[in-house]
Amino acid sequence: MSLIVQKFGGSSVANKERVFNVANRIIETYKNNNSVVVVVSAQGDTTDDLIEKAAEITSNPSKREMDMLLSTGEQISISLLAMAIHELGYPAISLTGWQVGMNTDSNYSNARIHKINADRIKKELEHKNIVIVAGFQGINKYEDITTLGRGGSDTSAVALAAALHADLCEIYTDVDGVYTADPRIVKGAKKLDVISFDEMLELASMGANVLHNRSVEVAKKYNVNLCVRSSLNKNEGTVVKEVNDMEKMLVKGVAHDLDVARIALCDIEDKPGVAFKVFSLLAKAKINVDIILQSIGRENKKDISFTVSKSNMEKAVEILNQNKDVIGFDNIKTNGEVAKVSIVGAGMVNNPGVASMMFEALSEAGINIHMISTSEIKVSVLVNAKNAQKAVQAICEKFNLAD
Amino acid sequence: MSLIVQKFGGSSVANKERVFNVANRIIETYKNNNSVVVVVSAQGDTTDDLIEKAAEITSNPSKREMDMLLSTGEQISISLLAMAIHELGYPAISLTGWQVGMNTDSNYSNARIHKINADRIKKELEHKNIVIVAGFQGINKYEDITTLGRGGSDTSAVALAAALHADLCEIYTDVDGVYTADPRIVKGAKKLDVISFDEMLELASMGANVLHNRSVEVAKKYNVNLCVRSSLNKNEGTVVKEVNDMEKMLVKGVAHDLDVARIALCDIEDKPGVAFKVFSLLAKAKINVDIILQSIGRENKKDISFTVSKSNMEKAVEILNQNKDVIGFDNIKTNGEVAKVSIVGAGMVNNPGVASMMFEALSEAGINIHMISTSEIKVSVLVNAKNAQKAVQAICEKFNLAD
Repeated sequence: MSLIVQKFGGSSVANKERVFNVANRIIETYKNNNSVVVVVSAQGDTTDDLIEKAAEITSNPSKREMDMLLSTGEQISISLLAMAIHELGYPAISLTGWQVGMNTDSNYSNARIHKINADRIKKELEHKNIVIVAGFQGINKYEDITTLGRGGSDTSAVALAAALHADLCEIYTDVDGVYTADPRIVKGAKKLDVISFDEMLELASMGANVLHNRSVEVAKKYNVNLCVRSSLNKNEGTVVKEVNDMEKMLVKGVAHDLDVARIALCDIEDKPGVAFKVFSLLAKAKINVDIILQSIGRENKKDISFTVSKSNMEKAVEILNQNKDVIGFDNIKTNGEVAKVSIVGAGMVNNPGVASMMFEALSEAGINIHMISTSEIKVSVLVNAKNAQKAVQAICEKFNLAD
Repeated sequence: MSLIVQKFGGSSVANKERVFNVANRIIETYKNNNSVVVVVSAQGDTTDDLIEKAAEITSNPSKREMDMLLSTGEQISISLLAMAIHELGYPAISLTGWQVGMNTDSNYSNARIHKINADRIKKELEHKNIVIVAGFQGINKYEDITTLGRGGSDTSAVALAAALHADLCEIYTDVDGVYTADPRIVKGAKKLDVISFDEMLELASMGANVLHNRSVEVAKKYNVNLCVRSSLNKNEGTVVKEVNDMEKMLVKGVAHDLDVARIALCDIEDKPGVAFKVFSLLAKAKINVDIILQSIGRENKKDISFTVSKSNMEKAVEILNQNKDVIGFDNIKTNGEVAKVSIVGAGMVNNPGVASMMFEALSEAGINIHMISTSEIKVSVLVNAKNAQKAVQAICEKFNLAD
């Protein structure tokens, strides 16, 4: 007998038919003599509808009250899923974040899990119940409801799997697993059977949209046996785990991210502390900066370019212009029509030829590179947004990642 | 400085405009140097929408899961109301049933309040917050969410007023207060300035639809200073309190209830234990019986008539027919087209002429009486449904209850 945690996203429980599809999936696992804990997100558009309700009242809602509001979405879906399992003749009980002791910090709307008191879940499992847990939500030390932010339900599932020492944590989605590239845009993209935590982390933060970064971090930290698979078929999916023998396949996958804007500060005086000024101003405004590139200019001047998410571009420019004299630059150039394309693979660090193979593929496809950034297991380039798909396809072909 | 509990129903917070109307009402009380605790129901049709969602999944939902589902309705409205108060520049915090320590028994869907641990509310009031509490919901000893059943938010408000030793509990509704009869059907029905708990209890159980019975019971038990008033104007409303000097006005009000069906068991053998058999069978099926009337028949036979709510008529007849031999009756007659009309007044018990005045009014109006039932402070009669309005009008005129 194994203990299995299964996570289903909002689209998997969007309507009656899908709720019963998920219920049947869960019951199948339960009937195979497993203990099952299920984590569910809010149904389909529920969260958007709730956000709209708040927007009618105020443009600047309190984050605490937003969490109080949004957490109802998961509470609705867990009760409906429990009812569906009952209707099919099996025992189930739904539990909210506070009922499963999902203790978090007080950073409303983006809370971090501190610890889980799993006594209630363990008791329900002893009573042979299928336990349905509301994802995305927790409770802080003041007994107030918190939410975990983007991808929160993935994190809930992995954290529960860690706390319960589960044998397996299955993340159900609408694709068959993790691919070498987005199968919706690259013809013949291959499904991976196995990927390492580190590679998955790079792919997740690179816009692969399969697993949220925080969930992979938690899985890596507690060595959770993680698996990404489809709720629509019985295919095996992709196992995410600690892998040591990573040399065989140099490049594991290609990711692209269209939510990128480039900002360039031109003709900055070349003296110490300038970069610090720029990025501390942005950090104070909670603007995340991704790729940073500093070029050597002429006559004691230099340029600093960096990327932010599109939604932060205007705000970043505003802040920088307000501090033009302090920073001491000549002008700002922006480009919102760019995309980040990255290759990821643990073997890369020992094979210096990999980056140049990527540049070769792009060159052959006639695609210009704006910026380059590298780490031990990835190489990212910034290209024009309209070239993103062509770039991913060309790289996949070069590294034999597509059939 | 006073502590005031205010309760607003679902229609009072049905949309953005109404939420802000309620928020302004609350702020006005707060600005007059009062501590304010607000109890809110779910917005407009929210509860019906949630019930429909469950009905799509199963025709027989678990009551525990229904309470998990339905309690989200109030959680949505409290967060939105808190946001509206923030938007208007005042401090507010929303709290669910479990957060305010609303401890109940485990009778899901119709739970009774055991005790309230008001520490959290007191702390928030000390911090000068307007405290917005989710009505209708509580938590049982297993830390599961319960709901209080029909009129539950009224009960939440009165129970909180009792636990907090509030100076006043205001129940806001869409009418100006408690009337001598339903102002929508009786022209010139008068608003009462004061009514006693006992009279209010009889009116509430008689279909007056202003305050739920359980809330009045709790108010009477803990002597809560209760007031029913309109959320749409500043009129004084009706005070509900312990009144000793009740002789002056014999009849306080007239109530009518259209949700009544009459069932008659004809030609039952006249021997001991028959009535017990009939009503214990119905009690086992959780069918509430209201007026009971037993007539003397002929040749050792008798008839037993009684009323139930319309929705229970079919089920009651089915149960009785299944036990026809055990009970020993000849046939069942039913009438779903009846109404109960009642007069209520604490002075009645010492004035035997009151009942006959009521019968006189009905006789003059040419209305036939099917059944009569009396208690210390009320007289109820069953008439044809089509005569209900005429009966209420005639009685109001006879007792000078309408202008």
